[in-house]
Amino acid sequence: MNRPETSLARDATPIRALAEMLFAELTKRTQSGAGITRECYGAGETAALALFRETALAHGLQCANDGAANLIVALPGDDLSKPALLFGSHADSVPHGGNYDGAAGIVAGLLCLIRLNEERCSLPHPVRLLAMRGEESAYYGRANIGSRALFGLLKAADLDARRQGGGPTLREALQGSNADIEAIASGTPLLAPNFASAYLELHIEQGPAMLARGLATAVVSGIRGNLRHRRIVCRGEAGHSGTVPRWLRRDALFAVSDLLMRLDEHWSRLLERGIDLVMTVGICSTDAELQAVSRIPGEVYFSFEERSQSYDTLEGFYELFRSECRAVSDQRHVDFEFDERVYTEPAIMDEKIIKRLKALSEDLGLSSEIIPSGAGHDAAVFANNGIPTGMIFVRNRNGSHNPDEDMTLDDFMRGFELLYAFACGGAAT
Amino acid sequence: MNRPETSLARDATPIRALAEMLFAELTKRTQSGAGITRECYGAGETAALALFRETALAHGLQCANDGAANLIVALPGDDLSKPALLFGSHADSVPHGGNYDGAAGIVAGLLCLIRLNEERCSLPHPVRLLAMRGEESAYYGRANIGSRALFGLLKAADLDARRQGGGPTLREALQGSNADIEAIASGTPLLAPNFASAYLELHIEQGPAMLARGLATAVVSGIRGNLRHRRIVCRGEAGHSGTVPRWLRRDALFAVSDLLMRLDEHWSRLLERGIDLVMTVGICSTDAELQAVSRIPGEVYFSFEERSQSYDTLEGFYELFRSECRAVSDQRHVDFEFDERVYTEPAIMDEKIIKRLKALSEDLGLSSEIIPSGAGHDAAVFANNGIPTGMIFVRNRNGSHNPDEDMTLDDFMRGFELLYAFACGGAAT
Repeated sequence: MNRPETSLARDATPIRALAEMLFAELTKRTQSGAGITRECYGAGETAALALFRETALAHGLQCANDGAANLIVALPGDDLSKPALLFGSHADSVPHGGNYDGAAGIVAGLLCLIRLNEERCSLPHPVRLLAMRGEESAYYGRANIGSRALFGLLKAADLDARRQGGGPTLREALQGSNADIEAIASGTPLLAPNFASAYLELHIEQGPAMLARGLATAVVSGIRGNLRHRRIVCRGEAGHSGTVPRWLRRDALFAVSDLLMRLDEHWSRLLERGIDLVMTVGICSTDAELQAVSRIPGEVYFSFEERSQSYDTLEGFYELFRSECRAVSDQRHVDFEFDERVYTEPAIMDEKIIKRLKALSEDLGLSSEIIPSGAGHDAAVFANNGIPTGMIFVRNRNGSHNPDEDMTLDDFMRGFELLYAFACGGAAT
Repeated sequence: MNRPETSLARDATPIRALAEMLFAELTKRTQSGAGITRECYGAGETAALALFRETALAHGLQCANDGAANLIVALPGDDLSKPALLFGSHADSVPHGGNYDGAAGIVAGLLCLIRLNEERCSLPHPVRLLAMRGEESAYYGRANIGSRALFGLLKAADLDARRQGGGPTLREALQGSNADIEAIASGTPLLAPNFASAYLELHIEQGPAMLARGLATAVVSGIRGNLRHRRIVCRGEAGHSGTVPRWLRRDALFAVSDLLMRLDEHWSRLLERGIDLVMTVGICSTDAELQAVSRIPGEVYFSFEERSQSYDTLEGFYELFRSECRAVSDQRHVDFEFDERVYTEPAIMDEKIIKRLKALSEDLGLSSEIIPSGAGHDAAVFANNGIPTGMIFVRNRNGSHNPDEDMTLDDFMRGFELLYAFACGGAAT
């Protein structure tokens, strides 16, 4: 282990000041026009990981890389042989993204290890940090590359994908980062089966719910999976807007509007019953080649997406969706043509971890609200591969994937305290 | 008056055979790839008018041009000094249109004059035919050029308009057809005030209603006017499809769908009460630059059009439309931004003419149904400029403005018989 030689010397820096300094330094090293860019297996991500490594070493921690070139940070004396409570999040960002998506979780985990080391706590189990690469799908069209590699889940098609907008394939990028490409390509799990007894990730909330409800921190119940169609075509019959009476119309736009309002009604009722569900039609358009003010739309295309933490809800609402398509077809004399249905599975957070986080939140005077995660996270990969997993959300303004992400240092420190209390083994169930 | 020198000699051709021959000859002379093209103040329209002139002269009728280069056909001995019952329709077509839109009315009027001349009927008033130019807006963006010129209604902007896709201005095209451009430009009416006591136009139906209801002919109650917006923008707030809960969404697409379903409900109820109304949103789209399957649409643009024969209905439903926009704004937290409102006035057919056509239809064993015209016609210009006006619709399959217009000769002859009976002064009110 190297001797620390950095300005981020531990003695001069209480935890809060160190957090502030780390976020500022991250911005400085990865700024790129508007916002920051930390490309997956690229320069910005590598620069961020280097900062975490320097800081860890400067505070007497151990560092290593795993076979996917993720950074592992451990306490002195941890020989990595026993199952650990694993803190983790990702070092990459979307192009011109914000400073906190991913980085907040790594900084929080790193600060936990620094304090645990300073305070020489007696721990019930090892505590480690995994600073992962490649969580964002923006570069290679596949999310959670770093965590999926650990479980041997990357496919040949994933490795052959070329960087969006030109550049290397993912295989080449992995090789360039000294990852163990042979093991990854063969689907060999890179993580020893007993490496982690639990996984815990702190992350900024990427939606507006906590801000709207006045929650500084929240415990995550699960990560929503989704069912999608990228393109559904509703076909009716075009016609002259003046000459076709209502009873002879097969208006594709009125049909799609009818469908959406039926689904909106169901959605609203399901929410009243406590069902976890969001639905979105992000793309909808009359045919740009044929549309005119005085032409009844004969064709409309649209996307469909529903998200829920529950597989049952996803399948149930999907059936409702298809059933309403049939009803609208009958009543408005249109047809719906569906492309491939794409499914991403939800992930449920571990019940015991949720209970402990809830109890610890109450002890710390924080809200003990439990909310779902609408966006995907590395935590879903761990949860769906047999590792008891939990997540802590920290309030954040302006969503994520944009330069305007806005988490206050006060809120971050609240999240950090919760993570630290968990590491110390408090409120055990 | 020239001596007829044509193969369409009168003695050998009973009316039905003459109709068949004229439609075939029209197709032959103006065919252009798929369908026929009779460009406004251009070659195809001029060729069609030449055929009508030849045929009229061959059957002993008189021909003249008016100041807008429209063709006037009169019975022998008519010095044009007394107010006439004026039959009329238009000789032009959209590019690659069908054979009957416009031409059916001219052929019917021409055949009436030919039979009236043959039968030497004693008429209560002169009967003339006006074969007009430039009814379609496809070339110069302005409809009813030939009829509007007669009433001094063409503006400088109309005359300066250049042919769509390149070519002459309307002014140049009028000059090329020997129209009286000085009178037209100065807004001088070209039609003597006592030229017409009434105007009657036979036209194919351009919608599917008569086919669906089994009507060979129908009497037109009025020509729908319309109120339009070309582009309304609904602004909500974009967001991550997974992370924004329903209660915090400002989904612009759900808002527009809600609006359309509210209007559809009102429309349906108004129709039940016998109100004449059609409404169409021909263009509707999420923003192509920003849309994504997993992005809540922050902005949707759409067009709006309503048509009715009643000014009161147009204004009343427009108020309802704006009121529902406000309600949707309130409930879904979006804003609507409207471009200029464009109004085209409706035209009411003359009550006495409608009564006579209805009674004559019954006498002839035809349906006496009265239906609205959803599309515009030269008849609207006459009706809105003080001339008692009527219209007869003839059943037609496949709409109009396409090569597949399909009127049977049997149905055409039924319409012709009704027009002829009217000319003879039958079923007087």
